[in-house]
Amino acid sequence: MNRFKVTELGRDVFWLRDAEREHLVRVLRLSPGDLVVGYDNTGREYTGVIVNIEDKSVTCRILSTDQPDVEAHTSVYIVAGLSKGEKMEWVIQKGTELGMSGLIPLRAKRSIVHIEGKKAQDRVARWQKIASEASKQSHRVQEPEVFEVCDWKELKEQLPEDTQWIIPYEEEKTQRLASVLKTMSSEHPIAIIIGPEGGFEESEVAWVQENLSAQSVSLGPRILRTETAAMAAITLVLGHFGDLG
Amino acid sequence: MNRFKVTELGRDVFWLRDAEREHLVRVLRLSPGDLVVGYDNTGREYTGVIVNIEDKSVTCRILSTDQPDVEAHTSVYIVAGLSKGEKMEWVIQKGTELGMSGLIPLRAKRSIVHIEGKKAQDRVARWQKIASEASKQSHRVQEPEVFEVCDWKELKEQLPEDTQWIIPYEEEKTQRLASVLKTMSSEHPIAIIIGPEGGFEESEVAWVQENLSAQSVSLGPRILRTETAAMAAITLVLGHFGDLG
Repeated sequence: MNRFKVTELGRDVFWLRDAEREHLVRVLRLSPGDLVVGYDNTGREYTGVIVNIEDKSVTCRILSTDQPDVEAHTSVYIVAGLSKGEKMEWVIQKGTELGMSGLIPLRAKRSIVHIEGKKAQDRVARWQKIASEASKQSHRVQEPEVFEVCDWKELKEQLPEDTQWIIPYEEEKTQRLASVLKTMSSEHPIAIIIGPEGGFEESEVAWVQENLSAQSVSLGPRILRTETAAMAAITLVLGHFGDLG
Repeated sequence: MNRFKVTELGRDVFWLRDAEREHLVRVLRLSPGDLVVGYDNTGREYTGVIVNIEDKSVTCRILSTDQPDVEAHTSVYIVAGLSKGEKMEWVIQKGTELGMSGLIPLRAKRSIVHIEGKKAQDRVARWQKIASEASKQSHRVQEPEVFEVCDWKELKEQLPEDTQWIIPYEEEKTQRLASVLKTMSSEHPIAIIIGPEGGFEESEVAWVQENLSAQSVSLGPRILRTETAAMAAITLVLGHFGDLG
């Protein structure tokens, strides 16, 4: 059944507007009587039947409400050093499927991509759309949030105080991710800081170790591209806590 | 240092020919005196200095030979139901970085891609090239082998008798990959069978369960795209045996 993000929720109906309505009407060409699933980022999902298609809104009567156990119980965030467009986009798509809670785009020293102001806002909006589409495809009921692009200094305030920070680093040869995970708790958020194509500068790693008590970890002896490292790290973290595989 | 696949190995020299020579001369524009690293899929890697560039071959004198502990100790193969070009290509690229031993392209019932004969051979050659490039990028010394495209009936003979087969399946709701891995040994090869975009038909899963004693597993409640499932599965398998993260 096609999935939609609920624009407004009533007592026994929900409404789809704007892009959700457009997609239902123009792309999927659904009509009154067709069944759809709506979610509103509360963890609930609503099976509904289309009762009316108006100019600006589609009205669906709720037939049943469910709270599927589909979301990861561990909150894992990816902090992604800005890298080339397609790499960011697929980290967001794959990270959403795998179960990330959110993605924070970071201006790293070696980021060759530089976006500011309006351009950065548009990019974030586009990334959020990708997260939204991937959420529907993977049947999630809580879309990951794509945060505003931030600098190192602003990183700490993005996430709760009790966040556990992990930074995979090529020069970290001794401490493996697996051993660090044994010291962490699924009760508190986990943030994985991934470098841009060129990796991190030593000073950046030192900074997060000092200011965020981040643990630098090795992902093993093989050199991973930035997007591969992001996917491997979130998979291993969610797997460790029983939220994947 | 730039990495090359050794075409021929002598007592204290190695030669690079064909594509490896072309890449060194035309793309990287290296010259006599420059240092390079060569590997020959034996697990060894050779640091060499270019001593001579001839029309058909580049001669490098070996300065040192090393046997880096970079390869996974567990042999993990991905059996990939033929899916769209880019999906296959990045499963091969990412699978190589992560540490797969090889990839077997499989004609699955729902594969929308159909390649036979010469076209299939060309595609396999292209995929092997991608595995080769990813091996260099991730500093591997043993390139994964991309097998010929095969059918279900031919699958068993592709890998050793003692191979442990795993098939992630959306309809498998109870048996998780994590629990199945506890019953497996890193002493024997592990093959992960991944479906095409449309997934497997029930009869295909039943067939591998009966003929390969394959274990069907769940990767969790979120629906993963075929390429995401492949990456998550190999990451979790290698992670479980301490070969990643």
